[in-house]
Amino acid sequence: MITPIILCGGSGTRLWPRSRVVKPKPFLPLVGDQTLFEATLARCADRHVFAAPVVVTGRGHLDHVAAQSSGIAGLQIIVEPAAKNTAPAIALAAARLPADAIMLVCPSDHHISDEAAFARAAQAAAKLASEDWMVAFGIEAKRPETGFGYILRGEEITDVDAGGHRIEKFVEKPDRARAEQFLADGGYSWNGGIFAFRAGAFLDELARHRPEMARAVQLAIAEGTADGAQFRPDAAAFGAIKPDSVDYAIMENTQHAAVVAADMGWSDIGNWEALRDARAGKANAAGNIVEGTGELIDCSNVMVDSDGPRVSVIGLDDVVVVVDGNEVLVVSAAGAQQVGKLTGAKSQ
Amino acid sequence: MITPIILCGGSGTRLWPRSRVVKPKPFLPLVGDQTLFEATLARCADRHVFAAPVVVTGRGHLDHVAAQSSGIAGLQIIVEPAAKNTAPAIALAAARLPADAIMLVCPSDHHISDEAAFARAAQAAAKLASEDWMVAFGIEAKRPETGFGYILRGEEITDVDAGGHRIEKFVEKPDRARAEQFLADGGYSWNGGIFAFRAGAFLDELARHRPEMARAVQLAIAEGTADGAQFRPDAAAFGAIKPDSVDYAIMENTQHAAVVAADMGWSDIGNWEALRDARAGKANAAGNIVEGTGELIDCSNVMVDSDGPRVSVIGLDDVVVVVDGNEVLVVSAAGAQQVGKLTGAKSQ
Repeated sequence: MITPIILCGGSGTRLWPRSRVVKPKPFLPLVGDQTLFEATLARCADRHVFAAPVVVTGRGHLDHVAAQSSGIAGLQIIVEPAAKNTAPAIALAAARLPADAIMLVCPSDHHISDEAAFARAAQAAAKLASEDWMVAFGIEAKRPETGFGYILRGEEITDVDAGGHRIEKFVEKPDRARAEQFLADGGYSWNGGIFAFRAGAFLDELARHRPEMARAVQLAIAEGTADGAQFRPDAAAFGAIKPDSVDYAIMENTQHAAVVAADMGWSDIGNWEALRDARAGKANAAGNIVEGTGELIDCSNVMVDSDGPRVSVIGLDDVVVVVDGNEVLVVSAAGAQQVGKLTGAKSQ
Repeated sequence: MITPIILCGGSGTRLWPRSRVVKPKPFLPLVGDQTLFEATLARCADRHVFAAPVVVTGRGHLDHVAAQSSGIAGLQIIVEPAAKNTAPAIALAAARLPADAIMLVCPSDHHISDEAAFARAAQAAAKLASEDWMVAFGIEAKRPETGFGYILRGEEITDVDAGGHRIEKFVEKPDRARAEQFLADGGYSWNGGIFAFRAGAFLDELARHRPEMARAVQLAIAEGTADGAQFRPDAAAFGAIKPDSVDYAIMENTQHAAVVAADMGWSDIGNWEALRDARAGKANAAGNIVEGTGELIDCSNVMVDSDGPRVSVIGLDDVVVVVDGNEVLVVSAAGAQQVGKLTGAKSQ
């Protein structure tokens, strides 16, 4: 059995104005009828494969989490007293689980279109994790993306029948030229933030590479309080932790880093261009997509997404128009990364 | 003295959604603080030159006309029982004036930035009109516009000291190649729908070229009713008239058609691109204009015009974004002529 660890962390600004601090990306139905959080839970719903999930989230998201996971038996929620990045969040879950539990760490703000491929990669990763490998999903790199970290795979791991490879190295977000070189070289994949660990092995590695964090997490759990399905770690103990990502704290330090290939229609929906692309199934012959009420004349690759007002567009290519409450955003696909710079996005 | 005849006719669709059937273009403050109608009145406000104006309008616009001309002493309003195009509208005014009154016919939905140049052209036109010339303003053609009619000037009129020319011919809206040829040839100007006539001479020409219309107008006046500053022509008599423009009915038939040059920063504000251009004085160094609340990143020649919501635009060139009530319009400058094709514009 695999225990899904669903991370519901902070909120970005690049899907503003649809994504807002009070209702961020995981809790919006950005692709299809389910929210990204609901879809993340649904991908791990097969109880022959997955145990009931553990959601790690902050107090600010608790109402959304509760509302969107109410039907799931056995679901547990760990309420982080503060946001400390992914390593402490995962450690909280690991410390609440039996040492031999296999954890599958899943961000809740990504889209995966091929659920069967996800399930296959999860099984492969779990097999490696049960042999104490620290396993990352290596998302097939489809284009020379400069917004992601990359994983270079090393030699194949032959003593576990899972098609895994050792990780040769992690590479920080590259510039365009390097990213193009990575694609040409092969062997590089995107780091999508999906990992598999045996709980006890994770805590052992944490104690080795981040001993202070490991002690603080154990204390936060020991001093924490359970309230039904919710567990609240001790705020003082957890608050003393220095934020760190699982990539830095564990994956780049361990001698047992592995990667499994995952070609599963993944998108982090990192900006409006990515969201438009993730909705490609809804596009007409000209590549246009209308969510809400809209009319397009002489347009191509235009997405309209309105929560009410009619949006009429004439003569544009490769543009996204968003209406949300009292905000209107009109952004070229090329400008999508800059949405976070807008006053509206920064001051929400 | 020159009597301004202010025509407040129908409403177009190409400035939708700001311009609506219930509040069309003349009554909106599209350029500056005044509405186009108010600015038209203000251009004729010098009572040493201009008599009190006569406004010809329909019942649907009466409230707007009254509200936006309330301070003008002696202003008269002729309420057309039906829209019959410009020839009958002008004839109504002519028939209500003394035969020797000099009329200056002014559409109320144009913008003129150089009021001194307008006044000079008006004086020249009035001088010719007092000698029974039927005088059109020849607007200096600044670009090969295909949306306007053109006037080709003929020989100079030397017996009136006004710099006028006979009109050689009127040309219907040309295609692009012809329009470019007109500019290269010189001697062509735009027909902006501004005319000067002696009232009696106009009625004489009308009786000659459109005798039925002339009789119907005289009957509509004779059977009409005065109510304070308003005059209501008889609906049955006026309703029998076949619609016709002053261009067709008079200017293309008369032997006394004259043109005076007018280079006065004229725009018919015929679409959103033209309105953006008429607001050029408000543009920043990148050519961007924001009316209402907006923020632009990496944009050039973009105009935002919002009646409320904040509009954020990234990475676009030569685009107009309009928010009006429950409608959002995003249109390329090149697509501005197509706004009237939108469902929203057609179904208002």
